[in-house]
Amino acid sequence: MNDFEFYNPVKILFGKDQLSKINELIPAEKNIMLLYGGGSIKKNGVYDGIINALAGRDIIEFRGIESNPAYETCMKAVDIIKKEKVNFLLAAGGGSVIDATKFIGAAVLLEDGDPWDILAKGKEVEGSLPLADILTLPATGTEMNKNAVISRSSTREKFSFSSPYSFPKFSVLLPEAAASLPARQVANGVVDAFVHVIEQYLTYPVNAPLQDRIAEAILITLVEEGPKAYDNPANYEAMANLMWSASMALNGIIEAGVPDDWSVHTIGHELTALHGIDHARTLAIVLPGIWRVLKEEKMDKLMQYGERVWNITEGSKDERVDKAISKTVEFFESLGIKTRFSDYDIPAETIDRIVERFKKRGWRTGLGDRKLVTLPVVRKVLEERL
Amino acid sequence: MNDFEFYNPVKILFGKDQLSKINELIPAEKNIMLLYGGGSIKKNGVYDGIINALAGRDIIEFRGIESNPAYETCMKAVDIIKKEKVNFLLAAGGGSVIDATKFIGAAVLLEDGDPWDILAKGKEVEGSLPLADILTLPATGTEMNKNAVISRSSTREKFSFSSPYSFPKFSVLLPEAAASLPARQVANGVVDAFVHVIEQYLTYPVNAPLQDRIAEAILITLVEEGPKAYDNPANYEAMANLMWSASMALNGIIEAGVPDDWSVHTIGHELTALHGIDHARTLAIVLPGIWRVLKEEKMDKLMQYGERVWNITEGSKDERVDKAISKTVEFFESLGIKTRFSDYDIPAETIDRIVERFKKRGWRTGLGDRKLVTLPVVRKVLEERL
Repeated sequence: MNDFEFYNPVKILFGKDQLSKINELIPAEKNIMLLYGGGSIKKNGVYDGIINALAGRDIIEFRGIESNPAYETCMKAVDIIKKEKVNFLLAAGGGSVIDATKFIGAAVLLEDGDPWDILAKGKEVEGSLPLADILTLPATGTEMNKNAVISRSSTREKFSFSSPYSFPKFSVLLPEAAASLPARQVANGVVDAFVHVIEQYLTYPVNAPLQDRIAEAILITLVEEGPKAYDNPANYEAMANLMWSASMALNGIIEAGVPDDWSVHTIGHELTALHGIDHARTLAIVLPGIWRVLKEEKMDKLMQYGERVWNITEGSKDERVDKAISKTVEFFESLGIKTRFSDYDIPAETIDRIVERFKKRGWRTGLGDRKLVTLPVVRKVLEERL
Repeated sequence: MNDFEFYNPVKILFGKDQLSKINELIPAEKNIMLLYGGGSIKKNGVYDGIINALAGRDIIEFRGIESNPAYETCMKAVDIIKKEKVNFLLAAGGGSVIDATKFIGAAVLLEDGDPWDILAKGKEVEGSLPLADILTLPATGTEMNKNAVISRSSTREKFSFSSPYSFPKFSVLLPEAAASLPARQVANGVVDAFVHVIEQYLTYPVNAPLQDRIAEAILITLVEEGPKAYDNPANYEAMANLMWSASMALNGIIEAGVPDDWSVHTIGHELTALHGIDHARTLAIVLPGIWRVLKEEKMDKLMQYGERVWNITEGSKDERVDKAISKTVEFFESLGIKTRFSDYDIPAETIDRIVERFKKRGWRTGLGDRKLVTLPVVRKVLEERL
């Protein structure tokens, strides 16, 4: 096992009848901004639940945070917050709203310089307004970590940042609120959580059997419960199991003491930035390519993955690994998530564009747990996915 | 899955070369008390490491915290802390030292009343001095939770308390420091962690497949890595895996959303209080009795446990469950941990004494996940262990 530090102070309130508790969790003197997206929280009852729970308190609303939240939208919220002296941010919705809120909280407190540099240049976050969230969609895990991903519409770029200041003070996880989700969003959530686990698990072995087994526990649960929630988002039990799996997938527990990768995400982000493809779908496109191109290098862990997640115990090493990759692709496709460029009408030229974008940003080393994903590998991976 | 709240703000620093970081984690103005046990930290280098890391700072030492830490010892520390205006507690050692430090931190800040009532009467903790710890022995999990267990020598009683104020600010986990542990203590640690998991896992099913699988992940890791660490405590990899498993066993993760039991602990504590038997050994005595007496009631989960932890897939339900219980007993015994009254020369009259003690304390309902462990069941369980 590698040395590690672990710290996660997010308070989780999970299940039914949790919204009534939020009033006491937000200090009385706080000026609250409620941030949300296109208004689904008005349809699923969450908006009313929040307003009831916070009855009598001043709340400024900021509506209209889009999926793949835009820097430009965030900066509009920053202006209002400064003018209205808001000092507590409450996000309600899915990962995009929460990510935007994390960036807004950090941007408000930045004393000098351009907030965009937090994303594009890794400028250090100096603090954050306290923030919390009501989660209505299982997917990104942002409700239980310190990370966020933000896009810039004008330049079609997508970047992430991470800061211990950005941990939510609390997160209320409401499986019931996900009952009215479109199947497409449930499918995205399952695949997003699945690939989050993979990025921290399917790396080189470091003798960390507990971390491996916890990662496998999440993967197996997603394989079993994901399709049930996809078939019927109102299946409370399945949605609850999916929602907690998605949080556990990216709260730092399975990353403690092991290498991580994230090359699938880094490449996938470009497909979202260039073609507006849902984040999870870009991961489903890129992942099989990474595995096929780096099959030899990832052989040991792919074998373990095949055996423990898909019960593949027969055949040559090659056959077993091929089967594990096929099983994964079939799983994604069974949720209606296609895995090739052609499925999304992405032209082959996109490969050149992505490689050029990486070069332009000053690409230095390879991506991934052992920096094996060099620019030529990126090209091969994407060519494999045409 | 049941509704739940989860909160665990303990910062973990795990592995080699972690001690050098503690100076910056303890605010400069703090007056530190370093608490430890019989002096093993002077032999394994941890004491020197701490003194070096905190060079130039005033440190008061409090030495002599015993296993099953005594209330009387804790209160001596409380007196010194008040006199010397100590305002940061740093525990170094195993679970006993950390538990004592948690109680000391809470007792110092109690404004009215008798600190003993925190333990015996569930009096609410009003706050705690900030505390942190250096862990040298994998076992209790106290380094990553808010609980502590304290004994009173004069009355031979053993009680626990739990308070969010008692979370360590940080815990440094040092598998290397455990290299010189006697095999007996390693064995105790493995069994302690194992039964911690069981108390939160082997209950009635609530459709929480992720929590079940994470619990099983810890159990399997303990079964695989525990004997390696027992055979050679200087096997760093095995000791690291054991140490992280013990923390994960009782940090709230596997308890989130599922019922818990703790009847094995409640009964076991009496064997320590009356006969001074190591905590883990009392658990190894009581657990098989609970399972044999409540076999029917716990059948479903015992089947699952047998299959997933011990690969028991053949035979009738009864046979499979019997085999799972036998496998568990064999595992304990393989670590040199005996499981019957007769192995420890405990007289049969102890059963009456325990039942009487429970009655005297105002026993109301049964123990365990469904309150099935009534006083007659306690008697049956212990009779099964003669």
